[in-house]
Amino acid sequence: MRIFNFSAGPAVLPTPVLEKARDELLDWHGRGMSIMEMSHRGKDFTGVIEAAEADLRTLMGIPSNYKVLFLQGGATQMFAQIPMNLLAGGTADYVVTGSWSKKAIKEAQRVGKARLAGSTEADAFTRLPGVGELSFDPSAAYVHLCTNETIHGVEMFDLPETPAGVPVVADMSSHILSRPMDVSKYGLIYAGAQKNIGPAGLVIVIVREDLLGKAAPTTPTVMDFSVMAENGSMLNTPPTFGIYLAGLIFKHLLAEGGLAAVEAANVAKARRLYDAIDGSGGFYRNPVAVDCRSRMNVPFTLADGALDAAFLAAAAERRLEGLKGHKSVGGMRASIYNAMSLEGVDALVELMQDFAARRA
Amino acid sequence: MRIFNFSAGPAVLPTPVLEKARDELLDWHGRGMSIMEMSHRGKDFTGVIEAAEADLRTLMGIPSNYKVLFLQGGATQMFAQIPMNLLAGGTADYVVTGSWSKKAIKEAQRVGKARLAGSTEADAFTRLPGVGELSFDPSAAYVHLCTNETIHGVEMFDLPETPAGVPVVADMSSHILSRPMDVSKYGLIYAGAQKNIGPAGLVIVIVREDLLGKAAPTTPTVMDFSVMAENGSMLNTPPTFGIYLAGLIFKHLLAEGGLAAVEAANVAKARRLYDAIDGSGGFYRNPVAVDCRSRMNVPFTLADGALDAAFLAAAAERRLEGLKGHKSVGGMRASIYNAMSLEGVDALVELMQDFAARRA
Repeated sequence: MRIFNFSAGPAVLPTPVLEKARDELLDWHGRGMSIMEMSHRGKDFTGVIEAAEADLRTLMGIPSNYKVLFLQGGATQMFAQIPMNLLAGGTADYVVTGSWSKKAIKEAQRVGKARLAGSTEADAFTRLPGVGELSFDPSAAYVHLCTNETIHGVEMFDLPETPAGVPVVADMSSHILSRPMDVSKYGLIYAGAQKNIGPAGLVIVIVREDLLGKAAPTTPTVMDFSVMAENGSMLNTPPTFGIYLAGLIFKHLLAEGGLAAVEAANVAKARRLYDAIDGSGGFYRNPVAVDCRSRMNVPFTLADGALDAAFLAAAAERRLEGLKGHKSVGGMRASIYNAMSLEGVDALVELMQDFAARRA
Repeated sequence: MRIFNFSAGPAVLPTPVLEKARDELLDWHGRGMSIMEMSHRGKDFTGVIEAAEADLRTLMGIPSNYKVLFLQGGATQMFAQIPMNLLAGGTADYVVTGSWSKKAIKEAQRVGKARLAGSTEADAFTRLPGVGELSFDPSAAYVHLCTNETIHGVEMFDLPETPAGVPVVADMSSHILSRPMDVSKYGLIYAGAQKNIGPAGLVIVIVREDLLGKAAPTTPTVMDFSVMAENGSMLNTPPTFGIYLAGLIFKHLLAEGGLAAVEAANVAKARRLYDAIDGSGGFYRNPVAVDCRSRMNVPFTLADGALDAAFLAAAAERRLEGLKGHKSVGGMRASIYNAMSLEGVDALVELMQDFAARRA
């Protein structure tokens, strides 16, 4: 029996995708071998990666002047790899709205110059900075944002106003593919796979072509976006199984109606959960300002933190897993990515209501 | 029906391991979710990575003063990551015995100082350098070797004599786990997974503890071996599915009797294939000096290269795949990694003999 998995990542994947992967795990399309056993240079795998890219382009409406890269190392490696590729001896502006963007600027400062353009840390990352709280350098190489903070549950629905001509670089790891996004507003989008894309060990980079070719000469070849773009992400052996699985997920999302349909489902799920929190009479509480509450990651606390363990035990009894909050925030966190069903959210809401009724 | 897959990597994996992965793909050990969907910080996955490390330590007899890391980026990223971690402002010596060690020195020279200690390129990488052809710097930070050259089919069975106190760093990507190795002779061993370890997207590093803590300050945190060692390879999200599958393969090799038994099988397979080549009266030819012929990668040419296409077609008819040689060498290449059975080698030998008899 499959449980309801609210983990922040690695996270729940669509059951039909896992079933298909299972069914063809030893013999992909009658070729007598697993997709994992195939040469990445052969026409079968080349077809898989090309289809994955084409389907992602369709899903997200990626303009033709953007390259799509399938890389290794996760978002954390990207925190260093992006300045290596884009700084070109200059400086970049970072907006810090949670743990992940804070890590990103720290890492960028190891490899180059990164400047804090604004932060909401003083408010425990419970809101987004207002216009007056941000100061941008019009000559920056780029502005870096994390458009959904997985730990703090803060999501950007509108981008801050940034200087014309300065490309926006966005870490979308935990909400990519959760709704339509206008890719043309960004210079570079990156996302670790292990939330809405597929298994851990893959990171996707979508980069505008004019930003290529600026890597510092000491950048490892395999980390140079231009070289990887020229080589179709296959300078070296790519994480083939992860790319294959991501491709299956892209096809699954297209079959479900694309990102507009996905967004509608995510809006419904998030509304149900936030309504349960806000309607609990203070038994549960989400600290994030209403206009930037994440649809993907919903942290909440119990008014009486001494009940946390009992709540998690009650959840486990109903086979709701992965609800323990990040240690830096405490309490609970429900990650309700694309592959979490409304049924799963309903089960969580029912638990929350039952638990509150018993303890109130 | 499973075919015989002679690909150089990604490559054939043990069928029982794939069957187990398939059977538990949607529900790992009754947990109601896939291993791919689990938090890497939970006790289930922590148990998986700890067991994988323990089993690898048993298999290879890794001394306790070595750390085992499960990383991303493949051997190609390691070509840069190793000098970043070990050079400490110094220089390193590289022995070039094929395409991969040639790539390694080139990449090292992007990030630091690397010196050519010897090369057999003038002889088209068909032999190993003799003692008189190698000159080492006794103050080098390390000596780098590729102990099995996948493309040229050259394997080191004895290490060259290197200066005392200079650690040996070995790229063992294409023959790790093929036979017992004395880990204590090395300062660092690394290997991309996609030959004898598991699926692509994972690289294993085995490093002596005294070599840690020397990374250049600009090294991305996630690429610093010391930091990854301190964090049990989990500073960031590791490639969990690849680690899980590698762990299954380690258990499979232990159940088969460990590396001594694996070596015996590999010796038998290699002997059968080289005998067929050498006994073909010149119809087939392997150019590598007999004392360093690889047991894992067997390149061979047909005396009449015009027959290459017909040979590959005849192989495909018998469902023997992945035999086309690397473009830089031409002809054929049979990669006969651990998971290739003697039955598969026999099928190849039979094809070679039948084809030669028909065309001779």
